[in-house]
Amino acid sequence: MKLICTQSDLNTNLSLVIRAVPSRPTHPVLGNVLLTGNPDTQQVRLTAFDLSLGIQTSFAANVLQGGEIAIPAKLLNDIVSRLPDGEITLEDEVGETVNETETDRRIVTLTSASGRYQVRGMSSEEFPELPQIAGTAVSLPVEALVDGLRGSLFATSSDETKQVLTGVHFTMQQDTLEFAATDGHRLAVVKTTNQAVADSEKADEEGSAAEDSKASQNSYTPSNEASQLELTVPARALRELERMFAPHQPTDTVALYLEPGQIIFQGGNQRLTSRTLEGQYPPYHQLIPRQFQRQLTIDRRQLLSSVERIAVLADQKNNVVKFSIDSVNQQLSLSVEAQDVGSGQESMSAQVTGESIDIAFNVKYLIDGLKALSTSDIQIQMNAANSPVILTPLGGRKMIYLVMPVQLRN
Amino acid sequence: MKLICTQSDLNTNLSLVIRAVPSRPTHPVLGNVLLTGNPDTQQVRLTAFDLSLGIQTSFAANVLQGGEIAIPAKLLNDIVSRLPDGEITLEDEVGETVNETETDRRIVTLTSASGRYQVRGMSSEEFPELPQIAGTAVSLPVEALVDGLRGSLFATSSDETKQVLTGVHFTMQQDTLEFAATDGHRLAVVKTTNQAVADSEKADEEGSAAEDSKASQNSYTPSNEASQLELTVPARALRELERMFAPHQPTDTVALYLEPGQIIFQGGNQRLTSRTLEGQYPPYHQLIPRQFQRQLTIDRRQLLSSVERIAVLADQKNNVVKFSIDSVNQQLSLSVEAQDVGSGQESMSAQVTGESIDIAFNVKYLIDGLKALSTSDIQIQMNAANSPVILTPLGGRKMIYLVMPVQLRN
Repeated sequence: MKLICTQSDLNTNLSLVIRAVPSRPTHPVLGNVLLTGNPDTQQVRLTAFDLSLGIQTSFAANVLQGGEIAIPAKLLNDIVSRLPDGEITLEDEVGETVNETETDRRIVTLTSASGRYQVRGMSSEEFPELPQIAGTAVSLPVEALVDGLRGSLFATSSDETKQVLTGVHFTMQQDTLEFAATDGHRLAVVKTTNQAVADSEKADEEGSAAEDSKASQNSYTPSNEASQLELTVPARALRELERMFAPHQPTDTVALYLEPGQIIFQGGNQRLTSRTLEGQYPPYHQLIPRQFQRQLTIDRRQLLSSVERIAVLADQKNNVVKFSIDSVNQQLSLSVEAQDVGSGQESMSAQVTGESIDIAFNVKYLIDGLKALSTSDIQIQMNAANSPVILTPLGGRKMIYLVMPVQLRN
Repeated sequence: MKLICTQSDLNTNLSLVIRAVPSRPTHPVLGNVLLTGNPDTQQVRLTAFDLSLGIQTSFAANVLQGGEIAIPAKLLNDIVSRLPDGEITLEDEVGETVNETETDRRIVTLTSASGRYQVRGMSSEEFPELPQIAGTAVSLPVEALVDGLRGSLFATSSDETKQVLTGVHFTMQQDTLEFAATDGHRLAVVKTTNQAVADSEKADEEGSAAEDSKASQNSYTPSNEASQLELTVPARALRELERMFAPHQPTDTVALYLEPGQIIFQGGNQRLTSRTLEGQYPPYHQLIPRQFQRQLTIDRRQLLSSVERIAVLADQKNNVVKFSIDSVNQQLSLSVEAQDVGSGQESMSAQVTGESIDIAFNVKYLIDGLKALSTSDIQIQMNAANSPVILTPLGGRKMIYLVMPVQLRN
């Protein structure tokens, strides 16, 4: 193989795929990145795969001679990231330095204006194959995907023993994709309306052939469960997905290929694959109250600042902040009493409907939710001091954040 | 006590002094910051002291009623840093909430536009007194102090068992202040010429009274050891000193008060005190060769980039990089052979005098030194492959960096 590319392209793409390289590989080859030079397309493809999460990217290069080789990922990334701007020539040789007993070892030479680096690579044959595109497809704008992830990922459980709760639950219906996450104490649900699905469906119904959109190559097939397909994707893979697609244009399209045990995201020259989490996701819709006796409309940033300040004192105690909702004065007061340490109190105006009430929350869950809701005003809806409370944005993304109040001690 | 100040002033000054508050105080009072309101000067003073490092700052405020109180430092800082811009009223009450058995406990109330916070404080009587200004004084520009610290601090030992080597050694002579640091493998020495000392001395010799400069209140007294005063200051205190004074104007003046066991730095409204390290500092001047058989003049940044790149491969092995200095071609080549992993080679032009030589270094020590030398060109001087090598800047601060080569294995 021999190719010439820019340091910038190789560096940018390496830093994307390296996120799928395990820090302690269970098998030596998984510590590598697979580099493929295609002389026909004049493209270089990089692949990393830890057997659960896989990332693949491509970029244009001058591929003089095609080939494929696995190269130690961290070492290659460390060298390339420090090379000066400009062209890099990458070449691999089979021959002279290869030991008879180790025929799969090959030498990769990187030459740049500053110097010459040689790294021992491995035959590409050992590198595990990334799952192929198959299954049900849906495509949605980058903006909807990133919005869904930002509004749900933070609410997943970080406790590995909680299995399905460590992932985000995707529910795909005919024209919507719902993201849900809960750690047992709070629940975040984002619904994105997905015009592209309807389009691809229509194309299919009309029997017209898929055009050049990858997303439409696999048409949407309604499942038996009332046109609904569900799966839970590990938060770790989705954090990489968010990082990968957040810099894209909001209107770019990402295609999702869903099949049992596997999900693939494809957008532009980038692909992310992930195994899905096994197990029944809790029936979270049952938790969301349909009616509310009390409602509060309030400035989100002002409330967030107050809760963050009062959290300093709440941290000293049990992380509990008391909300005194005063419908007479149309006011919300926050207070914390941390015995032996101190106390804090803040007040702000709010539009209150329903009777006054005292209700308490864990500050951490409140802060997480207030940060994830992105609009300037929000609604807080509740029934009693011991039943679920719902936070929703006024405008913006279609999101629900449910948090359980905690008991006041007096 | 009652005072009104801006959130910005209180926050800025708190974040400075809090660096002297131990994370795990040996005595409860040391976890506090001492706040003193002076109605005569209309100044608020903050003090923190861990019995080794002390930091004190002052700022203007509307002091309505004077007083002094110790307040839990981290809690106060966490609250104040989150308060909105604008005025803060700070008040302490002795009375209602005070328990009979705990007469030293007092309540401090902070009121801002957003709300009201109360924190339990302690009587100022328990707070240890900061060392008073005394001893030999010298004053130097902020620029010289910060330069001296930047050129030496990095070479101190981080191994607490190495005692004096964990500090920077100060040698004060009539008109110079020398900073030296070594961890046993490399040595950094910076000499600053200090005009201000000579001035204050002259003033003293002429018998004229010190004017309004604090620095000249304590005149320079030549010690018995040929007008030389030496002490070693812990790196930890000096890192805070650098952080504290780096934002000052380069031409501002810092006064140093030296006495056995103690050093005080005073500049503007800020003071830092530190105990000194006990023990004989190694006679490092003996290590510096007087004559050299070989010399190299080279672009510092280019060499640093090359060493940083080649360090990626050196990291895989024993951190050793080989320098091949070629006087015929006026070239320096760097190379690393990391068996079973790979190899790297870089070359650059250099002005070489003396015979060609191969010599090897630990990359870490080279990188540290090349970063600390701030000029665009540097000189590297040496005799043989097993004797000390000296790096000096061409122009800029008066600095020497000595590094021992390592043995080449072949």
